[in-house]
Amino acid sequence: MIKLYDIERSGNCYKARLMLSLLGLNYEKVPVDLGAGEQKQPDFLEVNPLGSIPVLDDNGVLIRDSAAILVYLASKYGQGKWYPKSPKGMGKVQQWLAVSSNEVFHGLAIPRAIKLGIRQGDYEAGKATGEKVLKLLDQRLSAEEWLVAGKPSVADVVVYPYVAMAPQGGLPLDSYLGIRKWIRRVEGLEGFTALPPPPPKKA
Amino acid sequence: MIKLYDIERSGNCYKARLMLSLLGLNYEKVPVDLGAGEQKQPDFLEVNPLGSIPVLDDNGVLIRDSAAILVYLASKYGQGKWYPKSPKGMGKVQQWLAVSSNEVFHGLAIPRAIKLGIRQGDYEAGKATGEKVLKLLDQRLSAEEWLVAGKPSVADVVVYPYVAMAPQGGLPLDSYLGIRKWIRRVEGLEGFTALPPPPPKKA
Repeated sequence: MIKLYDIERSGNCYKARLMLSLLGLNYEKVPVDLGAGEQKQPDFLEVNPLGSIPVLDDNGVLIRDSAAILVYLASKYGQGKWYPKSPKGMGKVQQWLAVSSNEVFHGLAIPRAIKLGIRQGDYEAGKATGEKVLKLLDQRLSAEEWLVAGKPSVADVVVYPYVAMAPQGGLPLDSYLGIRKWIRRVEGLEGFTALPPPPPKKA
Repeated sequence: MIKLYDIERSGNCYKARLMLSLLGLNYEKVPVDLGAGEQKQPDFLEVNPLGSIPVLDDNGVLIRDSAAILVYLASKYGQGKWYPKSPKGMGKVQQWLAVSSNEVFHGLAIPRAIKLGIRQGDYEAGKATGEKVLKLLDQRLSAEEWLVAGKPSVADVVVYPYVAMAPQGGLPLDSYLGIRKWIRRVEGLEGFTALPPPPPKKA
């Protein structure tokens, strides 16, 4: 049985759940209680010495980090879909994994967390990065239906969540028609599963 | 001919040069003048809309981002070495690409840049992250010769530069025997090419 160490509200855990769902795989969720610091306890550090979630346990193969989980699942269970076999395709997917961990993280995930009161930081600097990456994505997605090679791949799965949740962080998508159409395409994929609800706003 | 848009002193460009050299590939360096803002000019933005370096141009296939360049080069020219073909191997390599863009970047590259006067930021916070990742790497590299599957891979190429340069950032490696032995193994690989010199310290 595949196990996913998971936090329901985490966007990065959601990426893993979305990939599992798109691949039609059964799995068991193992909820990790961040509030109780469970991810820093010896039991969990044995699963992942970095103390971060999500972590996938596929019958003893342990993979940490959401992008790594996606590449693993897609290449193992995707039957040639989702993760390309060609060097060019792999390089292109990798570019979007980098955009996800750099520009999307700093420009969309962080400002959203600041706006929702779950993290402190420089909101305006983050938002400026966010606007740049939304423009870049919109150009790309106005010209192409999917981020890589004209078909859905882990690149779309990794970029989608924090782009779709950008309005929660004060970055509306109204003027980005290419992005909005792509979001509808992602949400129309067989096996799509809904985004986590936003956390309750802290007082 | 393979072209690399390159800055001599950049650790990320060095990763691409190291991979090209380990693979025994000839290529042409196209120096980009950051000081003159060349990476923000229309000509370069056509090569990479993100305005970042390095960028690889392999006879028209454009790949930006150092990790993406490594995955592309290794899977195209590595003859089954350097980037694994198994889902488990790919997932494990991806884990280290994530450690490189998260903990190694924030904990080793950033504190080094602050120490060398080329960037501002919270040095102590960065250094604390750096010490954690060095401990993690040392554990791993005391038990295993290489980061993934007992042989050199893009994981080692991507992690090596900022680990080897950590002392420039005030993080000495003296107590990390596992890391120091691994550095000697990397530097003994056929085709290894030397790290860039540190930038002159700003007054």
